[in-house]
Amino acid sequence: MDIGFIGLGGMGSAMASRLIAAGHRVLVWNRSQAAVERLRGEGAQPVATPAEAFQADAVLTMLASDEVIEDVIIAPGLLEIARPGLIHLVTATISVDFAKKLEKLHAEAGVAYIGAPVLGRPDVAAKGELNILAAGAADDIARVKPVLDAIGKATWVVGSEPHLGNVAKLAANFVLISAIEAMSEAFAFAECQNVPQEKIAEILTGTLFAAPAYKTYSAAIVERKFEAGFKLALGLKDVRLMLAASEKAGAPLPFAGVVRDNFVDAIAHGDGDKDWAAVSRVAFRRAALTDD
Amino acid sequence: MDIGFIGLGGMGSAMASRLIAAGHRVLVWNRSQAAVERLRGEGAQPVATPAEAFQADAVLTMLASDEVIEDVIIAPGLLEIARPGLIHLVTATISVDFAKKLEKLHAEAGVAYIGAPVLGRPDVAAKGELNILAAGAADDIARVKPVLDAIGKATWVVGSEPHLGNVAKLAANFVLISAIEAMSEAFAFAECQNVPQEKIAEILTGTLFAAPAYKTYSAAIVERKFEAGFKLALGLKDVRLMLAASEKAGAPLPFAGVVRDNFVDAIAHGDGDKDWAAVSRVAFRRAALTDD
Amino acid sequence: MDIGFIGLGGMGSAMASRLIAAGHRVLVWNRSQAAVERLRGEGAQPVATPAEAFQADAVLTMLASDEVIEDVIIAPGLLEIARPGLIHLVTATISVDFAKKLEKLHAEAGVAYIGAPVLGRPDVAAKGELNILAAGAADDIARVKPVLDAIGKATWVVGSEPHLGNVAKLAANFVLISAIEAMSEAFAFAECQNVPQEKIAEILTGTLFAAPAYKTYSAAIVERKFEAGFKLALGLKDVRLMLAASEKAGAPLPFAGVVRDNFVDAIAHGDGDKDWAAVSRVAFRRAALTDD
Amino acid sequence: MDIGFIGLGGMGSAMASRLIAAGHRVLVWNRSQAAVERLRGEGAQPVATPAEAFQADAVLTMLASDEVIEDVIIAPGLLEIARPGLIHLVTATISVDFAKKLEKLHAEAGVAYIGAPVLGRPDVAAKGELNILAAGAADDIARVKPVLDAIGKATWVVGSEPHLGNVAKLAANFVLISAIEAMSEAFAFAECQNVPQEKIAEILTGTLFAAPAYKTYSAAIVERKFEAGFKLALGLKDVRLMLAASEKAGAPLPFAGVVRDNFVDAIAHGDGDKDWAAVSRVAFRRAALTDD
Repeated sequence: MDIGFIGLGGMGSAMASRLIAAGHRVLVWNRSQAAVERLRGEGAQPVATPAEAFQADAVLTMLASDEVIEDVIIAPGLLEIARPGLIHLVTATISVDFAKKLEKLHAEAGVAYIGAPVLGRPDVAAKGELNILAAGAADDIARVKPVLDAIGKATWVVGSEPHLGNVAKLAANFVLISAIEAMSEAFAFAECQNVPQEKIAEILTGTLFAAPAYKTYSAAIVERKFEAGFKLALGLKDVRLMLAASEKAGAPLPFAGVVRDNFVDAIAHGDGDKDWAAVSRVAFRRAALTDD
Repeated sequence: MDIGFIGLGGMGSAMASRLIAAGHRVLVWNRSQAAVERLRGEGAQPVATPAEAFQADAVLTMLASDEVIEDVIIAPGLLEIARPGLIHLVTATISVDFAKKLEKLHAEAGVAYIGAPVLGRPDVAAKGELNILAAGAADDIARVKPVLDAIGKATWVVGSEPHLGNVAKLAANFVLISAIEAMSEAFAFAECQNVPQEKIAEILTGTLFAAPAYKTYSAAIVERKFEAGFKLALGLKDVRLMLAASEKAGAPLPFAGVVRDNFVDAIAHGDGDKDWAAVSRVAFRRAALTDD
Repeated sequence: MDIGFIGLGGMGSAMASRLIAAGHRVLVWNRSQAAVERLRGEGAQPVATPAEAFQADAVLTMLASDEVIEDVIIAPGLLEIARPGLIHLVTATISVDFAKKLEKLHAEAGVAYIGAPVLGRPDVAAKGELNILAAGAADDIARVKPVLDAIGKATWVVGSEPHLGNVAKLAANFVLISAIEAMSEAFAFAECQNVPQEKIAEILTGTLFAAPAYKTYSAAIVERKFEAGFKLALGLKDVRLMLAASEKAGAPLPFAGVVRDNFVDAIAHGDGDKDWAAVSRVAFRRAALTDD
Repeated sequence: MDIGFIGLGGMGSAMASRLIAAGHRVLVWNRSQAAVERLRGEGAQPVATPAEAFQADAVLTMLASDEVIEDVIIAPGLLEIARPGLIHLVTATISVDFAKKLEKLHAEAGVAYIGAPVLGRPDVAAKGELNILAAGAADDIARVKPVLDAIGKATWVVGSEPHLGNVAKLAANFVLISAIEAMSEAFAFAECQNVPQEKIAEILTGTLFAAPAYKTYSAAIVERKFEAGFKLALGLKDVRLMLAASEKAGAPLPFAGVVRDNFVDAIAHGDGDKDWAAVSRVAFRRAALTDD
């Protein structure tokens, strides 16, 4: 297939690489050039404008926020000049409200739209092992199966309205950040009582919590490996999206409120550019533990 | 080995059964008789008083709380009349403070003491697949290996002071109840936005959260299976023990505060005798979802 | 003075009435006509467009949100066509970020701008007893003293940058909604233990809390008088603005997180159009108390 | 009247002084002697044992906790040897559960019992301006009117069962510590945005919050005057009593959960012996503000 790809940050680059490796012709565009050149070396075909990427069979956008999608895709009228038949996959974590707006705009423009946020960090994306939370018309999802197969190890179809993929993504990220926070508090609690956090991590991941979320993040917390896989400041953006959706949905989300304050605390203490596992430092600091 | 067993509720009975099946001579005592008779049928040897159970090679106590241990074991002076060489395993979830008191009392009486709280519900205990969080002198733990092997699939040695086992147990239970609360909030959040909770459960347990804690409890929440494996009112006792230990330890525990309020809310609404997964009903009720 | 007034809801109408009564010539504009006609009867001079209200010595805007100000004042370019020397007082509760944007836009257009949010409900405004949290150039504030004196019993000068008035307003509203929440929880706590909430209200307002906030709101809660003085759904908007500002400022605000969830809960249960004191029903409902 | 007084800490001493000044014969007892000698100088009559203080017309106990009352009054059997007709006023903040136990024990011993916790700090007690939250039989309260009048400026009769006084005290202290926490968060929020906390304090206490709680504590926070009027570590005891009562009562108390964590945080950072207004340092620290 001919596949456009817009937004070549850590995640986007890794996903585009997978598409190239799978034999697709990939038309790449990015605001800054370095990532474009790197992918050209892998066989990608750089294009001069986002509009050209909308002339493929499918286009994936992995842009940082509602605002960037608005600026790069919507305001310039790309939906209006999209190649007939093109399917647009929005893979970033965006707000539920903005996803609903995108539904409307795509319908008006007659462009197929799939909400396809992904679970996984850049290293997972590089292996083509993302989990994709896809929502959209069943036919559309079927047509882009080769795309989804190239970037993910599984596609979870959430529903037929694209914004439902974003609801599921926010729910999953909420459970994930709650797990990180719970470990952080538990580890500080244990350390204050002379049980090494490594021991709690070992017990958890050897018993009821033998799952990637706990293995990955307990190791990061215990070893203070906070090089950004997913920046804490972006994590706060996700928490903000959860809270905004929860308000619209009418569902209180008390754990998200606790986490929000801890992200604000972490950023105030200079950890905004670290991986979001660094939120664990808040629990340690509040317990008057030094963490290094 | 000759093994005493005191406290034959759901957990205790299942554990005693395993010891009998493993070929040990098990001296059982319980406040009420029904469980005693059932175990007699399996080959246990009922004894008339708790004191007799303290005449074995090892004795396990699975009693409901600090207060019951005080009443049944400490106040009657069982430590003073224990058979020389006996090892006492306290398998219940007790407070860290009371475990420290037990350390002192056992040392004074010259009785070996192992803190050995367990992870797992009665159905897990029945299969001998508990996880045991053992703390005590290495020699003592080695000597009761046959006991531990009969009831558990793994023994995690937390440290040499028995109360450390209780610290680890509270930390693990804290992470568990936090996971239950996170799922509850996420499911209500999703349902309010037309994503079925089953879908979120499927995604979580198929991806980052493919672990027993999430599989067991997402199923319980989604199917409203709240027959008590672990009573909600007892769960609140555990949360209270976490908070008490956190206060002594100097480690804030904000998720436990949120969970505490939800347990109070659940009990006020009549769910104290249900399984503690029924705390999920609070998130649903607050979001104005009916849950049946 | 010639004073323009845009936005004649409950608060705006009461404030405009005071200005008329003080002898000013008041040019009123409102989206819907009923309030305009009522004020015409009091001596106001209706104008056909918001632009005409910007031809006075000063103009007050009491519009519901950032978005409405954007739509009614900014987008139509009223700053560009304002009468030279006009002073614009923005009296609504707006976001700190938007207030900063307004600072910039007014500076560029050469229009004086005072942030002048007010403390008080419509009945207080009707008596000219608002407290005004004014921020802006000292000269500007001095020039509109007759305006401020007509609508308020006191003007608190917060600083020279207009957005500081909004910071102070959010801080004050935060303390107020925290007091309402604290009373709600305390009253439910007391009622569950057979101490009538009236008794706690009497003790509080007779001792350490003998202040308008506690007198007004304890009475509202105890008597379930929830006719909207300030709509709960608008209160949630204010909490959202607090949280947004706290995020930008780097200051955790845990009480606001609790209150947010209770507002979401209250709205999910149908109380969004009641007075924000109705958030007290959440504490009662969670304690399984019926409140009427 | 002949009045016994047991427990001469900061509060107890000040209250006993008032009784002496009012012309009563006051029999004082305290664990340590310094306070006893000081009061002897004012005209008190020291007694050698608590039992002698129970031979008066009334006896006031101001002891630090449930446990101390148990040790000093109950275990030695003072209720059994009390002078017939004596009325026992328990003025300390004790748990609701223990107050219920005291009701039963007094009834069995035929000793009149009034729950009479007080609102106010030592400086207020020294002026005889405490607020007394009295609960007990109306006749008993009437008979000790001279006592109550000497120590307080007002007596608020909460109900006829003595423990209701303790419910009211916990409710009032909950609202007070919530106000302190709300100010702390608001001040940190404002400071981070360049509005001085003094300005917010001035606005609050000049408008809706013109009440002693806000005047006293905003000054303490702003000026960092944390010499202990009421020790933070004792404040945490009160929060613990609130949470315990809330659990029994079935009333969630989310603000208390937030405050509890902040007290734990404050004590972990070495502020346990400061006045409980020092909990404000947590909000400042979390916002990365230095507070001195």
